[in-house]
Amino acid sequence: MKHGVISRLALSDCAKTCMLASSPVFRRQQFLIRSLGGAGDHQTNFARMQNLKSVEVDAESIVRAITRPLDPSRHKGQAGKIAVIGGCREYTGAPYFAAISALKIGADLSHVFCTKDAAPVIKSYSPELIVHPVLEESYSIRDEDKKSIASKVLSEVDKWMERFDCLVIGPGLGRDPFLLDCVSEIMRYAKKSNIPMVIDGDGLFLVTNNLDLVSGYALAVLTPNVNEYKRLVQKVLSSEVNDPDAPQELLSLAKKIGGVTILRKGKSDVISDGETVKSVSIYGSPRRCGGQGDILSGSVAVFLSWARQHILSADPNKNLSSKNPAVLGCIAGSALMRKAASLAFLNKKRSTVTGDIIECLGRSFEDISPAT
Amino acid sequence: MKHGVISRLALSDCAKTCMLASSPVFRRQQFLIRSLGGAGDHQTNFARMQNLKSVEVDAESIVRAITRPLDPSRHKGQAGKIAVIGGCREYTGAPYFAAISALKIGADLSHVFCTKDAAPVIKSYSPELIVHPVLEESYSIRDEDKKSIASKVLSEVDKWMERFDCLVIGPGLGRDPFLLDCVSEIMRYAKKSNIPMVIDGDGLFLVTNNLDLVSGYALAVLTPNVNEYKRLVQKVLSSEVNDPDAPQELLSLAKKIGGVTILRKGKSDVISDGETVKSVSIYGSPRRCGGQGDILSGSVAVFLSWARQHILSADPNKNLSSKNPAVLGCIAGSALMRKAASLAFLNKKRSTVTGDIIECLGRSFEDISPAT
Repeated sequence: MKHGVISRLALSDCAKTCMLASSPVFRRQQFLIRSLGGAGDHQTNFARMQNLKSVEVDAESIVRAITRPLDPSRHKGQAGKIAVIGGCREYTGAPYFAAISALKIGADLSHVFCTKDAAPVIKSYSPELIVHPVLEESYSIRDEDKKSIASKVLSEVDKWMERFDCLVIGPGLGRDPFLLDCVSEIMRYAKKSNIPMVIDGDGLFLVTNNLDLVSGYALAVLTPNVNEYKRLVQKVLSSEVNDPDAPQELLSLAKKIGGVTILRKGKSDVISDGETVKSVSIYGSPRRCGGQGDILSGSVAVFLSWARQHILSADPNKNLSSKNPAVLGCIAGSALMRKAASLAFLNKKRSTVTGDIIECLGRSFEDISPAT
Repeated sequence: MKHGVISRLALSDCAKTCMLASSPVFRRQQFLIRSLGGAGDHQTNFARMQNLKSVEVDAESIVRAITRPLDPSRHKGQAGKIAVIGGCREYTGAPYFAAISALKIGADLSHVFCTKDAAPVIKSYSPELIVHPVLEESYSIRDEDKKSIASKVLSEVDKWMERFDCLVIGPGLGRDPFLLDCVSEIMRYAKKSNIPMVIDGDGLFLVTNNLDLVSGYALAVLTPNVNEYKRLVQKVLSSEVNDPDAPQELLSLAKKIGGVTILRKGKSDVISDGETVKSVSIYGSPRRCGGQGDILSGSVAVFLSWARQHILSADPNKNLSSKNPAVLGCIAGSALMRKAASLAFLNKKRSTVTGDIIECLGRSFEDISPAT
């Protein structure tokens, strides 16, 4: 079952096909098939990849194609429910940035699962988020209580899990061993339940040392920066990064981890699921203030869940089911983040901070795909 | 004593009547009588309901008719004192949204009664609110202390109760059994004291499983969304929701709970007290971000209390006493919320969040009913 996707629509009669042919949904599906190379494009693309070139995609068109239409008859939750697993005694900004970005892009509900110390602070940043103070760090518990506390943490998180369309694992997670053990269990549960995961920050530290958490899971996205990418390559390919722009290495890395999708952040964002390598180079900003990766992870989570819904509801005859929603989500998330960063920089220049970029997400989205 | 209303004004002489005839108050009363069908309209409306159609009302005129005039000679509290019962370890945004909306619409004082964990966070959202950290959840108390703590919680809340013009029960309340037991007692006290209640979110979970808390109480308003409505219908009518747009079902539901008013949220908001079915379809937004229901509950609370004051002070000969302030409050609250949501969406599009809608409440109100 590729990408955990089951085609739900089985249109068999001409009437339905004709009706679809004129619909915006149909036109978006057709666009996706064209822009990503049509049926059986994986082999073609793979052959192309031997030339070691990533393909710059028309990212804005992909944003338009997968964006979930607004419809007054829909109800709360149908445009996406995202959860960020992160936030500890040390870090509270990162999970906030990821979660609020998801809301500003159009998710209906955005949750944060963090430690008890982090929760009141993250809550106070914004009443828009639902913040669950359920995680624990070693410093606050005794060794003999660890087993029972871990079990309690997991049961509190698991009862929510199935409601979410995508998890973001890692922003501000920290590296406490007990906390990371609990998060490993959450990831195992999510994988078993076919819930997509975007893994960033300390989540990448966890995954690099425990590849089985994502290995072979097509609904996992890793979003490493230069250093996180180096560590992944060392661990997985047992080699050093010679040319950080080499698409072949990225493709091999994604393939070796069993077809997860990797978005390597940089001057261009380069994306591979082990079968294709795409790049997004539009817009962007020279400012490298901390927190931009968190916006990206929240954005990718929303677009991944929309792309997945889009593919799930597509006509099975149109071969959309061969498209990877994780790759589409990365392309769209990258494009929107880069446009928002460029808009914020235009206005704030050197003083641009992450909050300024978040404030530009709405206008950037509207410029790319107006919500008529 | 219909709707718990006693006509306080008993104008007997011609002079008073003539004076009233030219006053804005009198004109608003006349409008209400016309717009809601005049004396004895319940039977007429009930007959109409057999055709299974809800009646779209002139909601903006109702907002104008029941809005309490501003008058420099009035003192603090006379434009409304609202209390929200909600806010626990998990949820802090929802009670804030409800309470601040009540203030932004024109209430003079807005209180929140929440748990000790939630209070500092809700206080940090805004210094405008009065936040009482009085509720308790099971995790923080021992079984043997429950009885004495419950008694303490109730005495702390009860001493405030009679000051309020309306309670909002449920935003961010959570589902802790001990906390819900305490809130049940608060509701019983409010019902006995004829204090209106708007029940939303986890308050609806409580009421669905304990219908006696509101049954037969004409000053109770329930504001279910699609899923909460389904659960209510299953519980009360022992049936499934076949057509979510069917007014007859909503009417039967309200009637079966003894004439409470139900505002069923959706593409159109549909309102019934078991005798009439009205709908409000103006404005609105396709964005379904969490928190909009909290704005609505705070809005309905203010308008309900104003409608009640308006009816209480009306000429008894004008049959205004047959009007249900709960229905009027729902219509006005729905119209204002929908207008604010549409204004916010015009500006923020997909990135609209609940805070953006709250910021539009004032302008929306001014557009509908200028505070000359």
